[in-house]
Amino acid sequence: MQPELSRKLYKVIKSSNDLITAHDTAGKERTVIGTQLSEWGEGTQDDAVSDISDKIGVVLSELGVQEDTYAQNLEESRTILKVIRNTEKSVQPSRDNKAKIADEIQKLKIKEPQSTKIVVLEQELVRAEAENLVAEAQLTNITRQKLKEAYAAEFEAVIERAERQIILAKHGRRLLSLLDDAPVTPGDARTEYRHGGEARQILNDAEDDLRNWRLTLDDEPVNAAAEPEASTSAGTSGSNFLDTLHKTHSRDQAVEAPRSESTSDAQPGVPGTATVGVAS
Amino acid sequence: MQPELSRKLYKVIKSSNDLITAHDTAGKERTVIGTQLSEWGEGTQDDAVSDISDKIGVVLSELGVQEDTYAQNLEESRTILKVIRNTEKSVQPSRDNKAKIADEIQKLKIKEPQSTKIVVLEQELVRAEAENLVAEAQLTNITRQKLKEAYAAEFEAVIERAERQIILAKHGRRLLSLLDDAPVTPGDARTEYRHGGEARQILNDAEDDLRNWRLTLDDEPVNAAAEPEASTSAGTSGSNFLDTLHKTHSRDQAVEAPRSESTSDAQPGVPGTATVGVAS
Repeated sequence: MQPELSRKLYKVIKSSNDLITAHDTAGKERTVIGTQLSEWGEGTQDDAVSDISDKIGVVLSELGVQEDTYAQNLEESRTILKVIRNTEKSVQPSRDNKAKIADEIQKLKIKEPQSTKIVVLEQELVRAEAENLVAEAQLTNITRQKLKEAYAAEFEAVIERAERQIILAKHGRRLLSLLDDAPVTPGDARTEYRHGGEARQILNDAEDDLRNWRLTLDDEPVNAAAEPEASTSAGTSGSNFLDTLHKTHSRDQAVEAPRSESTSDAQPGVPGTATVGVAS
Repeated sequence: MQPELSRKLYKVIKSSNDLITAHDTAGKERTVIGTQLSEWGEGTQDDAVSDISDKIGVVLSELGVQEDTYAQNLEESRTILKVIRNTEKSVQPSRDNKAKIADEIQKLKIKEPQSTKIVVLEQELVRAEAENLVAEAQLTNITRQKLKEAYAAEFEAVIERAERQIILAKHGRRLLSLLDDAPVTPGDARTEYRHGGEARQILNDAEDDLRNWRLTLDDEPVNAAAEPEASTSAGTSGSNFLDTLHKTHSRDQAVEAPRSESTSDAQPGVPGTATVGVAS
């Protein structure tokens, strides 16, 4: 069972898996249909229908390949969401631990107000709070950066599939225009099919267009806020961490530990700052 | 079981159904994910993440709606393919009947060369051939026109989904750019989220763009060959039908029926010409 904190994202990740399976299936069916249409065309013993449906079949199969690639790209995006979920999972015990100690202190204060155990527990609480402060910072940093990263990748995948499938569909329509569908009267022979070369050229054009296609996004880069500069300043901000912790604890009336002790207790948490910033 | 003639297209139609189911599932999952992502964001208790993921959720749901529409459009295309398959099915007995009579004549000529039944069968064959000539013309007319129609609709559906999903994905990326993902140090508060209005505006922009979207295809109309003019000339060509039938039968050495009889026998087939041309 997923801990409370990661349960909601777990659902998103699970549904994303179903989504990916659906697009994967769609891609495979498309490719199958491409082959089946080509076989059908051959069976009609009509040169024009046979050639055009064969080449439409190629276009359909290629649409399927794009759908497959889309499914793979969605999988990458899903993998990024898992990083958030894993962080959520790992932060849960830290929250639980802090809450548990605070709870014990409250109970003990009522039951045995003079117990020396209270002081020990309060020291433990300061340490737990320091540890949790790092964990929560890691969580917000990972959450925001990976959320952007995951959906930037996902929207990019949507655009990639869309633009490449538009190329294919437009060339597919060109192929259809080569098929003469003027009705014939019974017994009249169809005029001979002479568009084999043109049809072949359309497939070549489609291949060229796909090969030359590049993703161009005119919007601002999604991860601008996480550019090296910002990342570096976060990396060197470890010295601020103790100040922050200090200020936070000074404001925290429930913790009665003296400043010096608080700072000292928090130090084991410092190495954690190195992992707070998210590598960009 | 499908007759031989329609078996191959039957496969295409069956696979198309699986394809449609896959895209339908994908659309539904997308919408579910949209809701789940929004719920997750709310649970983070981070105003920025909550608002952005809520609005990304709206974009994802709308991507799902487009996928649904795509599945429906594919279903329409599939319905058009069924018209070809049904025609194939209905032409099969006509072919079988012609072949059966020709076969009987051959057998009888060997077994009882003087049988008066041969003449009767030959008359039957002429009628069967006339009937089949109409059926085959119907088949080629329906096949070519409906093949073009089905895949023109299908490629149009691909382009429609693609263009509309590109609109959504680009606005989705704009939403992501509103989320500040600069890392914070432990204990530091995030700056207050102030992009609620902008985020709302992006959704409005997306709605506007979808509403104003029109399908523009710069290629030549796919059904140019079946424009009213061509269709009309086919409609008035019934008078040519008998000439055609006549010529065909004159060339057919297996049929020894005199011209006058052939023409006379073929006449019941004439009303069929009215249904040979495909209504455009």
